[in-house]
Amino acid sequence: MRMPVRFEVVAREGEARAAILKTRRGLIETPVFMPVGTGGTVKGIRFEQLEGSDLNAQIILGNTYHLWLRPGIETIGACGGLHRFIGWERALLTDSGGFQVWSLGALRKISEEGAEFRSHLDGSQQFLSPEISMEVQVALGADFAMVFDECAPGKSSLEEARKSMELTNRWAERSKTKFELLQREQMDSAWSGSGDGLSGHQALFGIVQGAAHLDLRRESLERTIEIGFSGYALGGLSVGEDKSVMWDVVNEIAPQMPAECPRYLMGVGTPEDLVEAVAQGLDMFDCVLPTRNGRNGQAFTSRGRLNVKNTRWAQDQRPLDESCECLVCRRHTRAYLRYLYLSGEMLAGILLSHHNLAFFLDTMRRVRQSIRSGDFMKFRREFIDRLRSDELFHHR
Amino acid sequence: MRMPVRFEVVAREGEARAAILKTRRGLIETPVFMPVGTGGTVKGIRFEQLEGSDLNAQIILGNTYHLWLRPGIETIGACGGLHRFIGWERALLTDSGGFQVWSLGALRKISEEGAEFRSHLDGSQQFLSPEISMEVQVALGADFAMVFDECAPGKSSLEEARKSMELTNRWAERSKTKFELLQREQMDSAWSGSGDGLSGHQALFGIVQGAAHLDLRRESLERTIEIGFSGYALGGLSVGEDKSVMWDVVNEIAPQMPAECPRYLMGVGTPEDLVEAVAQGLDMFDCVLPTRNGRNGQAFTSRGRLNVKNTRWAQDQRPLDESCECLVCRRHTRAYLRYLYLSGEMLAGILLSHHNLAFFLDTMRRVRQSIRSGDFMKFRREFIDRLRSDELFHHR
Repeated sequence: MRMPVRFEVVAREGEARAAILKTRRGLIETPVFMPVGTGGTVKGIRFEQLEGSDLNAQIILGNTYHLWLRPGIETIGACGGLHRFIGWERALLTDSGGFQVWSLGALRKISEEGAEFRSHLDGSQQFLSPEISMEVQVALGADFAMVFDECAPGKSSLEEARKSMELTNRWAERSKTKFELLQREQMDSAWSGSGDGLSGHQALFGIVQGAAHLDLRRESLERTIEIGFSGYALGGLSVGEDKSVMWDVVNEIAPQMPAECPRYLMGVGTPEDLVEAVAQGLDMFDCVLPTRNGRNGQAFTSRGRLNVKNTRWAQDQRPLDESCECLVCRRHTRAYLRYLYLSGEMLAGILLSHHNLAFFLDTMRRVRQSIRSGDFMKFRREFIDRLRSDELFHHR
Repeated sequence: MRMPVRFEVVAREGEARAAILKTRRGLIETPVFMPVGTGGTVKGIRFEQLEGSDLNAQIILGNTYHLWLRPGIETIGACGGLHRFIGWERALLTDSGGFQVWSLGALRKISEEGAEFRSHLDGSQQFLSPEISMEVQVALGADFAMVFDECAPGKSSLEEARKSMELTNRWAERSKTKFELLQREQMDSAWSGSGDGLSGHQALFGIVQGAAHLDLRRESLERTIEIGFSGYALGGLSVGEDKSVMWDVVNEIAPQMPAECPRYLMGVGTPEDLVEAVAQGLDMFDCVLPTRNGRNGQAFTSRGRLNVKNTRWAQDQRPLDESCECLVCRRHTRAYLRYLYLSGEMLAGILLSHHNLAFFLDTMRRVRQSIRSGDFMKFRREFIDRLRSDELFHHR
């Protein structure tokens, strides 16, 4: 049977793996970092740059919740789906909206049927369910869709976390049922026929929940595998819990996730997090840090984080990162970037976001190369040591 | 004697001329539009884009007043001058600060010696004179510098305008004296030795003032020529006076400006203004409209201005301008740009500014070609007719 994606591991080192993820929009080499394009734009970055050799992002994310509320599915549908609406031909992944609804906190009410909430844009009453999320994601037509899940806080009690995990499990079944129906009905706006050994359909990923409770996490994983998906994600991490909790879950669960499928750690993380998670066998990552922190004046470098506002850079003619070869580091000095930031110039956020994305994407390129050449453990050690080598930078 | 620039007219049609302006930073084909980079950045536009084939700007502007107040000459000097500070190797022109000081209105006080004013950044007391403006401009090291002038309002009485014009004239002499001294002392941060038939020094332009009074304008022109500069500018236009006043001055004065030097119309204007001013023999132009209006959601197109916010574009899948081949028009729809703008996404201002600059720069390319091929009058008529052809757009 033709599947929507094909995942082929080409090299391993410990739990880490390098693989080729074949999609209807071309090949993605994993481990991969996916820049976040919440509202159909990676903030401040032009698509030409995402495609250029400097960044060369193979896949970006869109947020279902945001795009559903604005511009809405009617508009995106009329424009031929999300790819055509935004002008991007490479792969896209949409989340399910579950996490965004969860993060509205007091503004939402969860029932068996779904989540009732007020829009962050205009306060209007809205309702999202597994079925609606699938309808929206199929209309968006991203190459990867996610089940509609409920996210339990990291500090949930066992009882709360179990309730939430079981709800997520029932929602996963409903998500899959509705998703498959919509695929059969060819409602996917980006379907272009099968070919190249693939079905041409969207791929749906399941999400493992269970907060900090490892037993629940294991049970969630088993039950999610039972339903059966094209890939599996770890959700509900990096949502305010202690870092140690996240690593307990990642270290325990990641190696148990199906080895023949892509494994996606949602919403994580810093460069060091990515490298550590790869070492636990994870393949896909997304995070707003490169662009959000870039807009706020923070650069990620091979020697830790650099606060561009700092007075010490006022006349510093070095690039942000002396070992970075991105367009920003080849052209601009810390002095200029500091000045732009303090002057409130748009170019500050644009250039810092670009550099940060380049650093994240280049780190993943080096991760992939090192796994293929069997040097990953060495790379990992040197990378982490170097990040911590410059006492003058911020590390957190 | 070697001059800082060489200006060679290669074709004429009526008063319009196509020329090569040879500078120490390469050749500039005129008529030329110079994107405005007030604070050392053309707002929202990366330098790679300015250099790319889409825009291919040969020269950009920096504002002396802004750069002097922030980051200051000490910082820019320490970083090797403005070119190196911002990372731009092509030609630069700096204004003198005169216009910005004038536009502070009540915050400034003019005396024979110079202009006392309060900084728009922190209210601190500042003083700018012809000598200080030259010191600052020489430290910035732009390839073209401007005399420090006083700008009289378009509605000034004959008496006020004469006083102002005469002050500007005395300041022009002082500017030139100081400028030449600083050049001899090689204080120009970007001087790199003479060569290629040029002196390697900065070029200084004089500015013709006189408000709406044609007699004063003629006298100002004569006296400015008498002092002698590498080029001549028309200042004090497009500063709130009626359009008809501007054209009276341009039509009368431009053809009388020295034919063997570049003629620069400061701060003007719309695409139709540029084409009309070229027809009167002007060669150089700068204006904030492409970027400022772009950030405010307005696109300049071959059929007039398009307000990207308009509901009618909500699902419109055409590019901003169907006859534009810029990167934005090749990739993005009105629907997407409208959505980005209404969502407050940075990318809206970035893409609209890019398209607008592409339209201005491409218009000037077509102006140059048409003068060279003897078709300028035809181009001009068709260009203006087309701009006014679509009743559904805004024309003003």
